[in-house]
Parts: sequence; C-alpha cells; structure tokens
Amino acid sequence: MAKDMRVSYLLDFYGDLLTDKQRDSLDYYYNEDLSLGEIGENLGISRQGVRDNIKRAEAVLFEMEEKLGLAARFSQINERLDSIKHNIDIIDSRNMRTYRSNDINESIKVILKDLDRLKKLIT
Amino acid sequence: MAKDMRVSYLLDFYGDLLTDKQRDSLDYYYNEDLSLGEIGENLGISRQGVRDNIKRAEAVLFEMEEKLGLAARFSQINERLDSIKHNIDIIDSRNMRTYRSNDINESIKVILKDLDRLKKLIT
Repeated sequence: MAKDMRVSYLLDFYGDLLTDKQRDSLDYYYNEDLSLGEIGENLGISRQGVRDNIKRAEAVLFEMEEKLGLAARFSQINERLDSIKHNIDIIDSRNMRTYRSNDINESIKVILKDLDRLKKLIT
Repeated sequence: MAKDMRVSYLLDFYGDLLTDKQRDSLDYYYNEDLSLGEIGENLGISRQGVRDNIKRAEAVLFEMEEKLGLAARFSQINERLDSIKHNIDIIDSRNMRTYRSNDINESIKVILKDLDRLKKLIT
C-alpha cells in the first residue's frame, strides 16, 4: 500500500468529517508511521480492518478536496500572504532607512499583526 | 417553514456536497424566492418532496459548517483583509502626500493586487 503524502495534509482540513477509527488509522499510519499490525493492536481491529479504514478514509478526503478545494485554496491564500509580507518588509525598511514616518510605522505594525492572525486562520 | 438566511450563504460554500435536487431546491427557495409549489413544478417533484429536500439539504449545510467552519473562517479572513487594505491606504496617502517614494509606491501596488486576488479566493 503506497503512502500518498497529500493525505496527511488533507487530514488537517477534513479530519472532522471522518469516523474516529478512520481518523485514528490515518493519523497512526501517516503521521506516526506505525505499521498496519501496530495500528490494529492500538484500535482493537484486524490488519485488514485497518487497511479498509485507511482506504475508505483516503477516498473521503480526496472527494472532499475535489468538491471543496479547501487545501488548494488555502495554499494559494498562503502564497499571497507571503507576498504581502515580503512587500511590507520592503516598505518597512525603506521607511526606517529614509523617512522614519511614525504614521507609516504604526500602519505597518497593524498589518503585520493582521498577517499573523491570517496565517493562524488558514492552518 | 421559516427562512434562515444563513442558508443562502452556506450554500455558496458547501453546495457542491448536495445532490442536484437538494441544491436546486435551496437555490430556488432562498435565492429566487419561489414557492414550494413552483419549485416542485420546476423539478418535477411534489410539494412535500421539495420540503424534504430543503430540510435535508439545510441539515447537511449546518453540519458541514459545524465541522469545517469554512464560512466563519472566511468571514474572519475577510475582516483581516479589510483591515490590511485600510492600513495600506493610510501608508499610500502618507507616502503620496509627503515622501513620494517610488519603492514604497511599487510595493503598495503589488500588495493591492495580492489583496484583490485574496478577496477572490475567499468568495
């Protein structure tokens, strides 16, 4: 059974839509790197039961991403936020070096706080 | 049957998770303001069938929002983006009035484009 590392990422977004056993199976398999046998022991189900849980859960995650595209959208949002951060840093250093405007400095501070909050909202 | 106007908003986020008849029923009812009888005629199902579709679809939307919280998160993202836009406008007018820095002006332009793209990504 090949590991698809996108699964770990999608689990963060859509994990709440899975059953407890499905979510735990994926978490042990992808994030903790346990074997099917070890996961089965932890969850009190058979090796084959673990395999079934993982397959079904992966299918749910990929279907949700196909329909809602949350992971793709958040990754694009993340890129744009990084770009804004980069340009705010440029404005900041230009201001500090040359103009030393308090108004601009205050606005930059607020924007940096907003960017921090945005980063938290998309993770 | 009371209309809950959050439904129209949630439909934008989770509509792809509904069946065609569920989505169409909600769209006619909430966005086009058709009566149950009119919707039934359009979809070739009974008034009661329409009512059932609407009830079930609303339950799906609220359950998805409870689990994923996409609408709430996007609304918070939107507030932060408005705050960044407001502070960029302050920096822009301060720069234009007093320093006329091309570097700062260029960075502001890029940030405004990024903000536009972000607004599109969350609607």
